[in-house]
Amino acid sequence: MYRAPVEEMVFTLRHVACAGDEALDPDLLNAVLEEAARFASNEMAPLAESGDRQGLKLQSGTVTMPDGWKELYAHWREGGWAGVMAPDQWGGQGLPVTVAMAVHEMWNSASMSFGLCPMLTSGAVEALAHHASPELQDRYLPKLISGEWTGTMNLTEPQAGSDVGALTTRAVDRGDGTYRIFGQKIFITFGEHDLTDNIIHLVLARIEGAPAGTKGISLFLVPKILVNEDGSLGSRNDLVCAGIEHKLGIHASPTCTMVYGDKGEGAVGWLVGEANRGLNAMFTMMNNARLAVGIQGVALAEAATQKALAYAGERRQGRSARHEGSGMAPILHHPDIQRTLLTMKALTAASRAICYLCAQALAEAEGTENKPFWAERGALLTPVAKAFSTDIGVEVSSLGLGVHGGMGFIEETGAARFYRDARIAPIYEGTNGIQAIDLVARKLPLGQGEHVHGFIADLREVVEAVRTSNRPGFGATAEKLGAALDALTEATRFLQSAEPDSALAGATPYLRLFGLATGGVLLAKGALADEGESRTALCRFFAENLIGQATALKDEVIGGAESLARAADLLLAS
Amino acid sequence: MYRAPVEEMVFTLRHVACAGDEALDPDLLNAVLEEAARFASNEMAPLAESGDRQGLKLQSGTVTMPDGWKELYAHWREGGWAGVMAPDQWGGQGLPVTVAMAVHEMWNSASMSFGLCPMLTSGAVEALAHHASPELQDRYLPKLISGEWTGTMNLTEPQAGSDVGALTTRAVDRGDGTYRIFGQKIFITFGEHDLTDNIIHLVLARIEGAPAGTKGISLFLVPKILVNEDGSLGSRNDLVCAGIEHKLGIHASPTCTMVYGDKGEGAVGWLVGEANRGLNAMFTMMNNARLAVGIQGVALAEAATQKALAYAGERRQGRSARHEGSGMAPILHHPDIQRTLLTMKALTAASRAICYLCAQALAEAEGTENKPFWAERGALLTPVAKAFSTDIGVEVSSLGLGVHGGMGFIEETGAARFYRDARIAPIYEGTNGIQAIDLVARKLPLGQGEHVHGFIADLREVVEAVRTSNRPGFGATAEKLGAALDALTEATRFLQSAEPDSALAGATPYLRLFGLATGGVLLAKGALADEGESRTALCRFFAENLIGQATALKDEVIGGAESLARAADLLLAS
Repeated sequence: MYRAPVEEMVFTLRHVACAGDEALDPDLLNAVLEEAARFASNEMAPLAESGDRQGLKLQSGTVTMPDGWKELYAHWREGGWAGVMAPDQWGGQGLPVTVAMAVHEMWNSASMSFGLCPMLTSGAVEALAHHASPELQDRYLPKLISGEWTGTMNLTEPQAGSDVGALTTRAVDRGDGTYRIFGQKIFITFGEHDLTDNIIHLVLARIEGAPAGTKGISLFLVPKILVNEDGSLGSRNDLVCAGIEHKLGIHASPTCTMVYGDKGEGAVGWLVGEANRGLNAMFTMMNNARLAVGIQGVALAEAATQKALAYAGERRQGRSARHEGSGMAPILHHPDIQRTLLTMKALTAASRAICYLCAQALAEAEGTENKPFWAERGALLTPVAKAFSTDIGVEVSSLGLGVHGGMGFIEETGAARFYRDARIAPIYEGTNGIQAIDLVARKLPLGQGEHVHGFIADLREVVEAVRTSNRPGFGATAEKLGAALDALTEATRFLQSAEPDSALAGATPYLRLFGLATGGVLLAKGALADEGESRTALCRFFAENLIGQATALKDEVIGGAESLARAADLLLAS
Repeated sequence: MYRAPVEEMVFTLRHVACAGDEALDPDLLNAVLEEAARFASNEMAPLAESGDRQGLKLQSGTVTMPDGWKELYAHWREGGWAGVMAPDQWGGQGLPVTVAMAVHEMWNSASMSFGLCPMLTSGAVEALAHHASPELQDRYLPKLISGEWTGTMNLTEPQAGSDVGALTTRAVDRGDGTYRIFGQKIFITFGEHDLTDNIIHLVLARIEGAPAGTKGISLFLVPKILVNEDGSLGSRNDLVCAGIEHKLGIHASPTCTMVYGDKGEGAVGWLVGEANRGLNAMFTMMNNARLAVGIQGVALAEAATQKALAYAGERRQGRSARHEGSGMAPILHHPDIQRTLLTMKALTAASRAICYLCAQALAEAEGTENKPFWAERGALLTPVAKAFSTDIGVEVSSLGLGVHGGMGFIEETGAARFYRDARIAPIYEGTNGIQAIDLVARKLPLGQGEHVHGFIADLREVVEAVRTSNRPGFGATAEKLGAALDALTEATRFLQSAEPDSALAGATPYLRLFGLATGGVLLAKGALADEGESRTALCRFFAENLIGQATALKDEVIGGAESLARAADLLLAS
């Protein structure tokens, strides 16, 4: 059963993500995380497997959540968790994004299906808090932040996925401050459910006569139930959940097809922010949402690692020179299983460090000093946090399944659920391919191309500290990390001056290189801040076993594009 | 929909697996494969998805297969496919293992659940053909080879998985030439079904008084329905399917818990081969079975690649400099998607080449010349074929799911089925960790440690031929493949003189290195035999984008064990 790694989270927040202790009050941090851990482990995790097995039921437009989930949500809301990150102006707790992300990690380790509900609501809160009129804010934010209602984000349409500019949902201006929305949206997470009395949809649509493409998209607030002047619930809006998807994973998270305006009059909606600036409003929330998805990758990797470790300690097969007892050894003592488990632990810790570092940058960007610098840093790290961590989520959950041998393939064991759930995270909220292109095309140019090199210089300082520490437990860590940073620098400079097509071709291996090098250095940063030997040993394992790929990835970035283009012409286009 | 890549298979068999054309009659080869392709594509593939969705039903010990599968099996049997590889002495077609494996690939691409049934029966046939008494052979082999009955292999017990020596199923000698079997077996593929009138179980058990461990295990033939003297079916034996597993994938393949002797008298069984030499009999069939599982990895990679390519050619999103038409480009034209698709194609082709090369060695070992050499070559390549190819099956099916974006996560799309099915292949028939240990501990010492170097020398000849070909399309292929072989040689020599514990620690990265280097060289061998440009381009893509990891893997093998041991002591054992 999942136990939230509070100590590890606190350490990573305080010593890896932050420069030192000053940014976060350790007492508050511990108190919040311990309480969140209790809820995640004791209340949420026990319902994850039954929720996965039972799944969801759609009848006459109503989605019934699995048994016990309505009560779970109510407890969660009563605990005040809905407003963790939300601004205190509307009743939120206003905790920094760093702390919120640690809590978010726990929920997603316990149940990724559950974790999606607050994730989407947070996104809606953020968009409204930044862009909506004061009237809309006052009417909707307090109830979204208290968890009385939930929120959704409606972007995707069948022909408009990664290419959001292709969307066709229409908005008709009624001239009375409202619009009427007509269209169909797909893949709407928690678009319909029975946990709350109302659901507030944020919907991207095109006002009649707006320009084509991304410059003609506006954002609308469209409640499931219309809200009266006095705040009470009124009549049903003209929108319906027309279907839920039968998915590989996250079986307790309703993925809905939403139809707006099917009855003819259109769904009543209110413009959020300026007309035709809807994508701008979406992007406000997108950095946090992408980081939150990265955290889901960390969460599944953590849950899978805990489960595999527990199994490997109990399951006995064969003998091992590393096991002193009589009879069969726990498989934990076999070197090949140890390699797997350490790989899982190291990749999980590295991806957590990257995500928390990104969270810290986003938090600083909301603070008072050096805001533009921190905004750039957050922007640089966001695609890495999202894509690297969700890839790690898939890889580690696959490794964890394998540790269970044949039992891993049996659904009742629970390891397969992580493997199934994890696979969506590299896809949604911008596919990992899109993240890699974002990193190369939009983030490497930040600060006239110098911001990224400043970041790498920060990493080099850590490596230098490892070198001068003379701590024997580090082994070849400094040398290996240094080589990885050399590779990162070389690949970065190459991409910064490459032809666009060649840069696009190298984007995915570059992001992997970026994540590996950064993750390795952050493990070293943690090890340096800890006098114990364990972090040093894990960092060294990462450096001597996992980071060697960096040079090959650099070669792939720099030398791979021509053969890719040639082979693509010959093999794919036919 | 799956289309068997007959041309690619024939080419790989004739020009990559074999030295030249002489070994296989091209007309016969084409005729067999075209007919098998027709069956796989037109009859088998259409039932794969409905079979996955409907799954299996167990009631009163009887397993009901999905709708249409009984008829499918009957057609398949009428087509004479059950005896493809079986010796003609008992009615088989006696085709070489190479051809049989190509056919097996098609069935598993079309439906891995279906493909498992003949795979297990083939294993039973082989064990009986090599070890059973003439009486048992004459009574059982003709009906197994005609497909009138199917066969199973019963090894695993709850406490005895990878450690088969821990099994406790008992056999009592009745002194009349029969034994009575008592015990429980788990994970028995096609242990019960309604496709045939009888099922012939091969069961590992311990004769009362036998030595402990692997040296006290015997193999028994235990039919579901006892067979009368005249060959007709008699009474039901004392064995029952007590449960079927609820699995991540292969939903139409019954994975059964079999209980023997539950009524009290014991299940009637006949000894196959010598008493206490049961593992020996199992190992006879294990090389082919492991190769057959490797082929399953190839099969899923192929099916996933075909599906992703088709989708990428149809799905339009965004614009690309590589797409000349107006409007959105098929995603096939985006460089990042091209990288994914080419990676899938290249890894699939490389793993197929390794499996077919292994098949060729096993076929030669059954031939007339240099049998001991070919037996060693087959033994060396078998763990690589099994583990590398099944890892590729998982990786490529995951990449393929991703190409579909959000649709990939929807079960009806079908890409998720490959991702689910593929995950068992690295586990069963000896986990990939066990394969890696087998490669390092038992296969590297073959021929006083020289066989593997002879194999690498063969690979070097191909690289030399690439170098001297001066074909510009090869780019840096010779250099990259040469570096990979240098890494392989260095890692091999290290492991051949390493301490056992350190060798075990490096086994998994070593096997990956072996597979990558061999696969890359085999693609080059194919390219050299083909005057067209496509194979050269794919080989170059592999060399310049995928094989660079080889050096990092070598470093991991040579330099990774100490940090692994240290981190394991500190982090895992607590």
